[in-house]
Parts: sequence; structure tokens; C-alpha cells
Amino acid sequence: MTSFPETISLASGYGNFQPPTVAVQAAAHLLTAGPLPISPVEGLPEVRAAIAARYQRQGAAVQPEQVVLTAGAKPALLAVFQALLQPQQEVLLLTPNWFGFRGLVEKAGGTLRTLPLDPATDYALDLEAIQAALTPQTRILLLSNPNNPTGRVYTRPEWQGLLHLTRQWPNLAVVSDEIYDGINFGPERVVSLLEFADPHQQHIVVSGFSKSLALIGWSAGYLVAPLPLVRQATAWQFATNAAVAALSQAAAQAVTEHAETISRELCQGLAATRELMQTALAALPGVKNQVPAGTYYFFPDFRAYLNPALAPGPASAELVARLRAGGVETVDGASCDAPGFLRLSYALPEPLLREALRRLSTVLVGSSAG
Amino acid sequence: MTSFPETISLASGYGNFQPPTVAVQAAAHLLTAGPLPISPVEGLPEVRAAIAARYQRQGAAVQPEQVVLTAGAKPALLAVFQALLQPQQEVLLLTPNWFGFRGLVEKAGGTLRTLPLDPATDYALDLEAIQAALTPQTRILLLSNPNNPTGRVYTRPEWQGLLHLTRQWPNLAVVSDEIYDGINFGPERVVSLLEFADPHQQHIVVSGFSKSLALIGWSAGYLVAPLPLVRQATAWQFATNAAVAALSQAAAQAVTEHAETISRELCQGLAATRELMQTALAALPGVKNQVPAGTYYFFPDFRAYLNPALAPGPASAELVARLRAGGVETVDGASCDAPGFLRLSYALPEPLLREALRRLSTVLVGSSAG
Repeated sequence: MTSFPETISLASGYGNFQPPTVAVQAAAHLLTAGPLPISPVEGLPEVRAAIAARYQRQGAAVQPEQVVLTAGAKPALLAVFQALLQPQQEVLLLTPNWFGFRGLVEKAGGTLRTLPLDPATDYALDLEAIQAALTPQTRILLLSNPNNPTGRVYTRPEWQGLLHLTRQWPNLAVVSDEIYDGINFGPERVVSLLEFADPHQQHIVVSGFSKSLALIGWSAGYLVAPLPLVRQATAWQFATNAAVAALSQAAAQAVTEHAETISRELCQGLAATRELMQTALAALPGVKNQVPAGTYYFFPDFRAYLNPALAPGPASAELVARLRAGGVETVDGASCDAPGFLRLSYALPEPLLREALRRLSTVLVGSSAG
Repeated sequence: MTSFPETISLASGYGNFQPPTVAVQAAAHLLTAGPLPISPVEGLPEVRAAIAARYQRQGAAVQPEQVVLTAGAKPALLAVFQALLQPQQEVLLLTPNWFGFRGLVEKAGGTLRTLPLDPATDYALDLEAIQAALTPQTRILLLSNPNNPTGRVYTRPEWQGLLHLTRQWPNLAVVSDEIYDGINFGPERVVSLLEFADPHQQHIVVSGFSKSLALIGWSAGYLVAPLPLVRQATAWQFATNAAVAALSQAAAQAVTEHAETISRELCQGLAATRELMQTALAALPGVKNQVPAGTYYFFPDFRAYLNPALAPGPASAELVARLRAGGVETVDGASCDAPGFLRLSYALPEPLLREALRRLSTVLVGSSAG
């Protein structure tokens, strides 16, 4: 008989992935080759070239000089926000979205404004609402694709509609966080913002290696931007950071060169637990769950289970606390601007996930829905 | 016949050290052990404990909870400055000192003020001048020990005098950058600020592994602080950074556990080139060179070689440019608040250093002084 931990976390942003063999080999090789290379603060040329080449394979005209390596996606975002935001300037964030953006914007001296998209339309980009929300103070339009937490993947036509609008604001930067771009179960691959023409030099992509390329614990990420912003971000990086650790750069280069294979294998490995969670959620009465194409999360609507005597925020926190008491840790959708929704990761070993879903069902409906 | 590069750099902050065997072994072991550990953003408990234990061996009452790991010393400094500085607050920096402090203070929203120490007294801590320079706006007194660029090491009695003064200002934080603490040729080991009683919770040490412990290219550093500041720095780190790469943490732990041996061997390895540079500088007429105890730099006074028709700053830049044209890259002391002085690294292979010193002499006196 297997014994399970008292609390099972469906809340982690990290999957249960083994480090890719090519990454381990690249790091091991460098370890035995003598002193590590002393990297420019923006990254080793060969690593920047590998990242540019990966986008070029998708048809994007990215040059190596546009890439700045950082110790994860958070420092990349901070470098971008620091470079772009003057006091009083705003970042417009399409929500639901990752809970960490607010702190990064505020630490860079900017102000975050949110624009909620509607779950009833599967978080369609509401161009009229976006247009209405933009002001001369809006310096950045920020989104994630695939979206964390909803898992929504935006298609090429949807991007085109959005960019048609943002081009009317040439001083508006569009920042797309694409760290989950390889975790995708939809009919088409994830389209990067970098694949579109950028006449006003306003397109910026931030990404990392720990989600789609399984480099968990290596602290590597990057930004891709027009050259003037690259210069500013590099200056920020030089003043405040060392270069990314050389072993992590070697691993990042290796997984980038094998990105398509690694991500495909990750998705194959995730298929069974994805199916398991989908089935369990479908069996819960009153839970609405649009099956998302991207990420290893579901973001179901549990509003039917909220205490109606409470306001949405406290009711959402109460639901999360009830689940925690029942042995399951979840991410409160309220932290992503969507109270009553829960972010649930299925990047877990199958027996552990099965037990977590059993507990979820027990807390909500008094018995396992399996 | 050996051929030398067109330009030889005596300007690098990095030595020519092999990575310590214990670090390579620790990283290699972790590489083959499966998924890397997911570290809390402040660092793995065993690494924080190893760092605390190292200070405890010196008699300092440091607890593991006081240590926050960062991706080098720069992010540690930024975390400290961000936590402590409100707008209008000042950092008082004893100079000459590292050129990077100004940018870090300003990016954290503070103001840098400098207080020059006198080369004629071998940069003695001028307590009357420091006392006179402190104001209620001074939030931080910042120094480096061993000092970069002068190499000066401050003794226990000198520290005691300084701390007697700073204790009169309980809201004044004392930040000591001790990243060169293992590179020391003086009669006594380098005394850490952490070895002194801290009744007002105002002592902070920032350090890294790339100078004294030969982890070049691993991007690891740390701060040690009173617990309230640790909490603020950890929150900053969580919002803006990933944890230090797990392989770098393993290497950092290994070199910390063998710190005394590794630093001793580094110093033994540096003895010959140190002697070489000292001899060459002594042979240059008009150059004043106090032989410093710490760091792998000399910081001689070349003011006799400045163009008297120019102001000190431009004259210093002109001297550096003349040397560069002659094939030697140096750090202009003006960047450290000491125009006419040059920071010269001797952590180079001996033949390369010999050639650089020959060029230096040729530029200055028209022929090699060797």
C-alpha cells in the first residue's frame, strides 16, 4: 500500500521533469574542460545565436544581438520594466494572469492596471475593451501566451487583430511572456509574437527554460527585444547582475537546439495525467472546465462551490483553505484576478495526482467522483 | 618564440584560476543524481548552513537564517540597497572604491556620497572625517575590505574604532563588501564585520565566490544580515529572481566547506606574479606603490606621468589611453575616485604578465625597466 503525503501540492509552477540528457551532457562536458568561460553579461554569443536560430526555424527574423540571457524570466521582466517605465506610466495586463507581474511592475516604479477577459468567451482578446483601456500613460501591454493560469493559446489571427490595434500606439510596447510555449496540446503550435512584423520596434518576448524545456533548477531565461531596449536591458544587467552561470548557459544552449524534441516528449509524458485530471473535473457537478490547449494547468471555475455569504475574494480564499485542510494545495484564482477559479497542475506522478483528485472530490462533494 | 595578444588586460576583475576540484565533483555528482533540487529563493538550507559555519569557525555568531544566496555579489547589494534606501537617503562610500557601487545605489533609488581616504596614510579610516560626513540622511556606510581597488585590509582595532562611531547612529547600516577576504598576504587573516557585536542590528556583509574561492562563471554570491533585513531581501529576491542555479549552490557549498584551503592555495599560486609586479613597479621612476595586503591588484600612484596641462580626470583617461595604445589595458583610478592611479591585476599567467609589464614600462619611460 502506497502512503501519500499529508498535503499534495497541485500549486507548484514546476513540473516533475527529469533534466534533458543533452543538457546534462553539455554541462558535464564543460565541467571537465577547465576554467569556465567568462561570459559577457548578456550571455555567450553561441547561446544567444542558438536562441535566435530557434525562432528563425519558426520563421521569425530574430538576430542573436536581440537576445539577452538572464537568470530566469523574472529578471528578464524586471530588466524590461526598468528600461521602459517612467513614474506614472502604466502596464496594462490582460487577466487572469500570473500573480507575479504586479510586484515586478511596482518594483520597477510603474503602475499595473488590469483588464479582465471573459471566461465565457474562453478569454478572447476583446479588442474594443483593450482599445478603450489604452491611454497615453500606457507604456506596456502585457500578456502571457500560452496564458498562465488559463492555458489559453492565442492563434495567428487573434495576434493579428491585437497587433493591428497596438500599431496605432507606436510608443506602446507589447510584452509577451511565452515561457510555456512548448507545452501545447492544441491543433497548431504556439505562435510567437516575434513572428510578426514589428514596424515600430515595440515587440518584446520574455521566456525561460524551466517550463517548456525542463531545465528546472538551472536559473536561466532570456528576453528578445529591439536593439535599443537590448542596450538598456544589458546596462541594467551589467549594473545589477552577473552573467547567467556558465553551466546553465551550456544546458540552455543544448535544450534550445533540441527544443522541438524535448517539448514534444514533455507533452507526451503529460498526456496521461492531463486526461486523468480532465476526467475527474468533468465528474464534479457544477465545475466548469474549458480544456486549455497550453501549459500543464487546468483553471476550472469552482464558483458553484463558494460560500454565497462571502464576497468573492474571501470566498475564494475559504475554498482554497478548505481544500488545504483536506490535503490538497491549489493556487487561488483570486491571486490571478479570478476568484472562485483554481489553478491545478497535472505535472505530477500519476498516483499522486490520482490521490489529490480523490481528496478534491471528497472535500467538494463528500465522496470521490472517480 | 611566444606570441602575445595585441592587448593584454590587467583590468579584469577575474583571476586565471582553475575551478576547485571539490566544486567540480559536487556539481558532477548532482548532475547525475536526477532532477535538481528545487531551492527556496533564499538558497538551500545546507548551503546557508555551510556559509554560517564558515563564519562561526572565525568566531562570528552567524546563523544560517541570516544568509541569503544570490546570483553574485551585485544582486546581493541591490537587494540590500532596495530594502534599506528611501528616496533622498544617502549611502556614504569610503573611496577609492569599486566603480559599480554608484550604479547600484542609484538604481535602488538612493544617492551616493563619497568620502575620500588619503593614500598618504595608506587609506586609514579617518574617524573624524567620517563622523563629520554622517547626517540623519545617511542610511548606509559602505566599504570594501579588503578594499577594491587599493587592496587595503582593515585590522580589528581599526574596525573597533569605526564601529564605536557607527553605534552612535543606530539607524545607520554598515555594509562591508568582503568578496576578496581570502586573497590576503598580510600578517593576519582578514577580520569580518560579522565578528563584532551588533547591538543595533546594523551590520551587513555582502560577498561572492568568484574571487577568494575561484568559482568564476558560477554566478553565486550572498548577503549576511540581521533577520528583518533578511526578510526584506528575500521578498525582493522572490519577486525579481529565481534561486541561484542548483549546480552553483552545490559548488558554493563545497568551496565554503574548504574555504581556508582553497584561498591559501590561491594565494600561494599568486605569490610569483605578485612579486613580479611589485619589482616592475618599483623600477618605474616616480611611481608610488604601497604594497597592499589584500586582493590581486596593485593600485599605484602614476600621477607623475599625467599630462600637467589637463585636469586630473582627463589626464588620467589620457594615461589609460596611452597605455592601451601600447598594448596594456588597465582600470582608470578615476572610475574609483582616484585619478592618476591605476588598478593593475596580477592574477595572470606569468609570461603574459611579464610582457604586459614590459609594455607598461616602454610606454612610460621609453624602455623596459626589467
